[in-house]
Amino acid sequence: MKFLIINGVNLNLTGYREPEIYGSETLDEINAKIAQYCEKQGDSADFFQSNAEGELCSALHEAFFSKKYDGILLNAGAYSHYSYALRDAVQGITIPVVEVHMSNIGAREEFRKTSILSAVCAGTVFGFGAASYIAGIAGLKVKREAGI
Amino acid sequence: MKFLIINGVNLNLTGYREPEIYGSETLDEINAKIAQYCEKQGDSADFFQSNAEGELCSALHEAFFSKKYDGILLNAGAYSHYSYALRDAVQGITIPVVEVHMSNIGAREEFRKTSILSAVCAGTVFGFGAASYIAGIAGLKVKREAGI
Amino acid sequence: MKFLIINGVNLNLTGYREPEIYGSETLDEINAKIAQYCEKQGDSADFFQSNAEGELCSALHEAFFSKKYDGILLNAGAYSHYSYALRDAVQGITIPVVEVHMSNIGAREEFRKTSILSAVCAGTVFGFGAASYIAGIAGLKVKREAGI
Amino acid sequence: MKFLIINGVNLNLTGYREPEIYGSETLDEINAKIAQYCEKQGDSADFFQSNAEGELCSALHEAFFSKKYDGILLNAGAYSHYSYALRDAVQGITIPVVEVHMSNIGAREEFRKTSILSAVCAGTVFGFGAASYIAGIAGLKVKREAGI
Amino acid sequence: MKFLIINGVNLNLTGYREPEIYGSETLDEINAKIAQYCEKQGDSADFFQSNAEGELCSALHEAFFSKKYDGILLNAGAYSHYSYALRDAVQGITIPVVEVHMSNIGAREEFRKTSILSAVCAGTVFGFGAASYIAGIAGLKVKREAGI
Amino acid sequence: MKFLIINGVNLNLTGYREPEIYGSETLDEINAKIAQYCEKQGDSADFFQSNAEGELCSALHEAFFSKKYDGILLNAGAYSHYSYALRDAVQGITIPVVEVHMSNIGAREEFRKTSILSAVCAGTVFGFGAASYIAGIAGLKVKREAGI
Amino acid sequence: MKFLIINGVNLNLTGYREPEIYGSETLDEINAKIAQYCEKQGDSADFFQSNAEGELCSALHEAFFSKKYDGILLNAGAYSHYSYALRDAVQGITIPVVEVHMSNIGAREEFRKTSILSAVCAGTVFGFGAASYIAGIAGLKVKREAGI
Amino acid sequence: MKFLIINGVNLNLTGYREPEIYGSETLDEINAKIAQYCEKQGDSADFFQSNAEGELCSALHEAFFSKKYDGILLNAGAYSHYSYALRDAVQGITIPVVEVHMSNIGAREEFRKTSILSAVCAGTVFGFGAASYIAGIAGLKVKREAGI
Amino acid sequence: MKFLIINGVNLNLTGYREPEIYGSETLDEINAKIAQYCEKQGDSADFFQSNAEGELCSALHEAFFSKKYDGILLNAGAYSHYSYALRDAVQGITIPVVEVHMSNIGAREEFRKTSILSAVCAGTVFGFGAASYIAGIAGLKVKREAGI
Amino acid sequence: MKFLIINGVNLNLTGYREPEIYGSETLDEINAKIAQYCEKQGDSADFFQSNAEGELCSALHEAFFSKKYDGILLNAGAYSHYSYALRDAVQGITIPVVEVHMSNIGAREEFRKTSILSAVCAGTVFGFGAASYIAGIAGLKVKREAGI
Amino acid sequence: MKFLIINGVNLNLTGYREPEIYGSETLDEINAKIAQYCEKQGDSADFFQSNAEGELCSALHEAFFSKKYDGILLNAGAYSHYSYALRDAVQGITIPVVEVHMSNIGAREEFRKTSILSAVCAGTVFGFGAASYIAGIAGLKVKREAGI
Amino acid sequence: MKFLIINGVNLNLTGYREPEIYGSETLDEINAKIAQYCEKQGDSADFFQSNAEGELCSALHEAFFSKKYDGILLNAGAYSHYSYALRDAVQGITIPVVEVHMSNIGAREEFRKTSILSAVCAGTVFGFGAASYIAGIAGLKVKREAGI
Repeated sequence: MKFLIINGVNLNLTGYREPEIYGSETLDEINAKIAQYCEKQGDSADFFQSNAEGELCSALHEAFFSKKYDGILLNAGAYSHYSYALRDAVQGITIPVVEVHMSNIGAREEFRKTSILSAVCAGTVFGFGAASYIAGIAGLKVKREAGI
Repeated sequence: MKFLIINGVNLNLTGYREPEIYGSETLDEINAKIAQYCEKQGDSADFFQSNAEGELCSALHEAFFSKKYDGILLNAGAYSHYSYALRDAVQGITIPVVEVHMSNIGAREEFRKTSILSAVCAGTVFGFGAASYIAGIAGLKVKREAGI
Repeated sequence: MKFLIINGVNLNLTGYREPEIYGSETLDEINAKIAQYCEKQGDSADFFQSNAEGELCSALHEAFFSKKYDGILLNAGAYSHYSYALRDAVQGITIPVVEVHMSNIGAREEFRKTSILSAVCAGTVFGFGAASYIAGIAGLKVKREAGI
Repeated sequence: MKFLIINGVNLNLTGYREPEIYGSETLDEINAKIAQYCEKQGDSADFFQSNAEGELCSALHEAFFSKKYDGILLNAGAYSHYSYALRDAVQGITIPVVEVHMSNIGAREEFRKTSILSAVCAGTVFGFGAASYIAGIAGLKVKREAGI
Repeated sequence: MKFLIINGVNLNLTGYREPEIYGSETLDEINAKIAQYCEKQGDSADFFQSNAEGELCSALHEAFFSKKYDGILLNAGAYSHYSYALRDAVQGITIPVVEVHMSNIGAREEFRKTSILSAVCAGTVFGFGAASYIAGIAGLKVKREAGI
Repeated sequence: MKFLIINGVNLNLTGYREPEIYGSETLDEINAKIAQYCEKQGDSADFFQSNAEGELCSALHEAFFSKKYDGILLNAGAYSHYSYALRDAVQGITIPVVEVHMSNIGAREEFRKTSILSAVCAGTVFGFGAASYIAGIAGLKVKREAGI
Repeated sequence: MKFLIINGVNLNLTGYREPEIYGSETLDEINAKIAQYCEKQGDSADFFQSNAEGELCSALHEAFFSKKYDGILLNAGAYSHYSYALRDAVQGITIPVVEVHMSNIGAREEFRKTSILSAVCAGTVFGFGAASYIAGIAGLKVKREAGI
Repeated sequence: MKFLIINGVNLNLTGYREPEIYGSETLDEINAKIAQYCEKQGDSADFFQSNAEGELCSALHEAFFSKKYDGILLNAGAYSHYSYALRDAVQGITIPVVEVHMSNIGAREEFRKTSILSAVCAGTVFGFGAASYIAGIAGLKVKREAGI
Repeated sequence: MKFLIINGVNLNLTGYREPEIYGSETLDEINAKIAQYCEKQGDSADFFQSNAEGELCSALHEAFFSKKYDGILLNAGAYSHYSYALRDAVQGITIPVVEVHMSNIGAREEFRKTSILSAVCAGTVFGFGAASYIAGIAGLKVKREAGI
Repeated sequence: MKFLIINGVNLNLTGYREPEIYGSETLDEINAKIAQYCEKQGDSADFFQSNAEGELCSALHEAFFSKKYDGILLNAGAYSHYSYALRDAVQGITIPVVEVHMSNIGAREEFRKTSILSAVCAGTVFGFGAASYIAGIAGLKVKREAGI
Repeated sequence: MKFLIINGVNLNLTGYREPEIYGSETLDEINAKIAQYCEKQGDSADFFQSNAEGELCSALHEAFFSKKYDGILLNAGAYSHYSYALRDAVQGITIPVVEVHMSNIGAREEFRKTSILSAVCAGTVFGFGAASYIAGIAGLKVKREAGI
Repeated sequence: MKFLIINGVNLNLTGYREPEIYGSETLDEINAKIAQYCEKQGDSADFFQSNAEGELCSALHEAFFSKKYDGILLNAGAYSHYSYALRDAVQGITIPVVEVHMSNIGAREEFRKTSILSAVCAGTVFGFGAASYIAGIAGLKVKREAGI
């Protein structure tokens, strides 16, 4: 299977900001581990990051038109909590999108407890740190391949 | 690793009720697949189901005192949305508990959109059908073993 | 027709508590009258009462698997106002369930004004005292037999 | 016993609009069946319908001053959800008024879930289709005559 | 000065319903006293009552076009709490309208605590029983004639 | 095409009240312009106005049974914001109804910002003054005839 | 009759602040007119003003223990909207207290629309400017003396 | 006097979970101290704990029918915040029930700030740790015996 | 007249996503029809689309400084429901902006029912599909040219 | 131990107002009983009462600077429900403050159900009448001296 | 320029309470620094502190009548969050009043996040500790003197 | 000290739009004055403006990595009220950020009253017009250099 990992706003700061929440690995290091994990299973992953809401929407559109991906892992950062634009972009395409958060968004500030993306995603995973991406990939893969 | 899979209220109806939401596999069939998946990875799983809120709390207490488990997968069913008793039980024990839902709770009735358990769980996974349990196990396992 | 009359939490106190709201007949006396009423019409009724939310759910499951009943009359007591577990149990079975309350729940405390069960029931009756059960039975019976 | 059946706004469309909700019988056909049902039991029923809130209030006043009725069955249609004028009219008279809805108002649009009339009615019945009127009559009758 | 006293829905029941709230005088008796009070001061009063929201609006329009009145005393009954139609009618005319309630609307049901008419009225008086009309007349009169 | 233009409560005051909001043309003058506009396009229009909620519902029913109209333009005035009776009347008929407001209801009082009619209308137009009716007619016409 | 006129916080600024809302007469000038009005009717009035919530409560207590007054006119200014202390003081004494506001509190800022004092007052008058005090006196007097 | 001390859900974990909130004494140790305190004053205490909502209701019923107790101390744990079933059970019996919490529920999570039991209890005590039970006993005892 | 048609986020997907809501014409095809319609009336239209909130604001600024347009038709997509940035941009310029939506936003998800742009727009049109743009143009044109 | 008993607004009316809620003992009589109770246990109590929010704050400050007291019992009356000033005063000092109410604030008016002081107090007691003060003293004393 | 620095409730505790929020300087020390800062710029400052809401209102009135001040710096403490009396006092005078808080009120308890004074102040400054007063003075001074 | 002044969406319109709110100076003119003010004090300032939320986040990131600035003055315009992305960007960096608004956001539209940025900023200043930037600089400078 081929996955696209999309990281949104401020995730380029991962490893530099609030390490007690986001850990001290940088996004590049995390991505490398994800790529390695995928390869081991015979899969592959592409990566995209942007701070701009519009570019994230466009990236979803392009993935849709490209027909290259079996699944998208989307960590939209703070946009998860108010960007109906992103929500519409996810809903408007037919690739399954898995919502991912590294931190436990249910245990933080009030505004972070509600994701407006969940309703239109194929699945949601949060709270496992960087392992959340892997769990999301496992969910997509098991659902499709293992028939469970 | 050794996991305890706890299923709550009405999950014994799985396979019999609303198959368009919960699939047509029974809980026993799902559990068998989970057990098989665990074994393949060198892990094992125990299973418990109850319709009674108090028994689910007690099951968490007992797991805690037994010191047998490395992680608990908890699908509390409807209790996820109002049982502060269960929430306190999860918070009161030190084993990591992963919240699991088969359906996409973000895309259904209003009351089902908010889980009061998430805040005290080690991670949350929903929307992958029965594969949600597997994704949760993967999350716990990767986090602990693969150092990601 | 064969009916199952399920009474929930604290209804075993009927006749003993707050008689200005619930009357002074005990639950057994009420049940006897309902049974008599059913018989007169060539129908029959079984009765179940429990204070435990989980047991009420299980009773609904069992009625469903038993295939013995044409309709269920459910007075869930206080659970009517917050037990999504019961709601899911009602929704998960295919027997028509009629929600019943003896008192006028619309004229009492704020929390009692909203029943979360109504939405998944075949019909709702309240405010007629013990006659609410009879009215509910009449509703089910007329709907099915009299073609109105 | 003598009953007055009052139908409110848009109920004259019954049978013509949204038959999946309201059935395909017209209001006249329903009324005929109710009348027949009453006669069979030695009771009788009068019928009134209006789209005007003020006329419905006046009809309740007149019933009160006429002293002709033992009970009123009121299906106020959409007025049930905001007409405090009707509520005051019901509260201001001493004949028992039963609130009736054919559809399950608890399972439809948000605004239809709350009836502001319930609090001042002698009883409430909904969800049985046209049989709701019959169930309401049964409730009043059993309560008064059968001593239950 | 010439006043128009408009009474709205259910006020024709005054004296017949809930005398502990509205007293036992009928509307005609109250109106007679108001007329007498006005005469004593060299003023006069006309009276109108309707249960119909639309007719109350039309009565306000006609008073406006007739140019006969120096002030209107409006007791809209339950319409005070939700009839934006009446509110617009009051706002659309240039005669000062005084909102009147006999009972203390601040001490009764929740819905009766908010009047949507106040904002567009020249003044508001409530809680003095039938004397509320007199107090409202006094307010208009003193304001205009006594220069206070 | 044949249109029915229905104006609701207080719209008979147009031209007489608050000209800074509603302009200084009377409703008759506006209707004349609309009629003229329709004729120029080979269409025709009938006009109806009432202050009574019930009569507006009845007018919608009659239009429905008459089968004379291809579309209805409805400016319900203040009823737009709370009359679920009108909403049900619109929903109960099969002619496309366009909701119209002359003023910008989004820029006025809080209560006027929400129309409960929109959800059941074929389209909504507001803010263009009397031209709102024309824009609504254009919308219906272009949609049907120009295939856009 | 003997009245006590209590004015609360910032009312000593009357005539100096925002004359478009409160007029340009000072509180002393208004009080003089009220005194004169009372005398003309054979009544008398005492006056008290304080900016301190506690002193206003104490003034109510003292009036109660003094047994000198037949009625109190209370314009509590901004305290009307949040001082449960004053509310309890009004409720704790047995002299009828009339709530008075010079401006139309229903047509100003959101916070000023709700008075928490109304529920425990004998009557409420607002919107007539300084004439509100007179209208309140008239209400108390007519109610007691004219038997209306 | 004879007291029944009822502890609800998760209180069996006391001493094992979150000692910074609940202290490190076990429930048995606390109960022993309470028993000793009662004896010293010539009173006695029975103890009951359950995680099941239904069993807690039944325990209240049985205490009521047994006529053995002068007062009940109820620490319902998390059920205090949503169990209307328990509330009804307390309200349905005539023994005075004192609500007890060891922690300061006003200083913790939002959901824990509102107890739905308080309204139907004879008194409420929280924040003193295990001494809360003693303070509740003192309150009942002083009220009855010391005539204060 | 010269119009600028601005389409916001995800509208480039029109024709590709959810055709039951947005139709199967692409944005280019719709724009071509609008251009043709304008030409037929002696008007002209320019077109702009962007997924980026900031670029949409800038486009409004540039239109303002360019002084080329008599009116702007703005379909902001999901930004209509939360972008106060766009709202400020509309409010900050002096060209009349008409808010347009193809679908009936009043009949879809809760978040889509409230547009925060309406309050600062010259008019609003929705629900006519692609004909909504034409209706908006008609509204602007009739208002300015036909003097209605 | 040495206690300071602070009573707030309107508590000087105790015994004179609403005896069905507050009993018929005056505050002086209650204080005398509290003093006597303290003496019997070898403790002592000082007493302070004020209707003024600011003076209550100052009394807390002075107690703090005086270092004379081991605990404060604070019955702030109505201030308990909105005085963030008092809350800050309690939080700003280091003596344990126990919140006391004689009546059951959970069973009265809506505004009285929430105390904003609880969160910063060492404990809370209400519903035991005057015995609430004693229960609070017992709570502080047992906690400190009996090691429970 | 001449400034009046008004400090409200509990600010006399500054330096003694919660130094991690308010620092360890006393109010006198802070005032001395402010005075010194003013002098250096050729300005002067007077200082006033009170715990009493009414006295703070009176201080604003007196400053207004004294005509001595070019600006007022007001740190009302907890009153900032509910004292509409103070708000009215600020609004009723014509001297520019700057709202000041030492702590970051946006980052603390929920109730502290909303100041009801801001709307009527000339400017607001918070979060700089004692330097907030200086920043407020700078704002007033630069605005008036530097023409920016 | 070295400052970075970041202006967000629509602030490039300053001087061109709504001069009664934002004044008639352009952003360039304001920036020039700020630069001049800084120089006079031996400080310096850089300036950045963008309408794009993502670019504003990136600008904050770059300032953080550049280590060039002692403080940032951020006027985010409308983004202040909903951009959790910006909030996270401010929180993710370690330079003190001061929130600035020229207008009094507390006295305008409802949505503008709440800034979601305040909680993570080092200080907040608004209402002084362009002088707000200077007051913010003064606050940072005095806090650091003058030891107040």
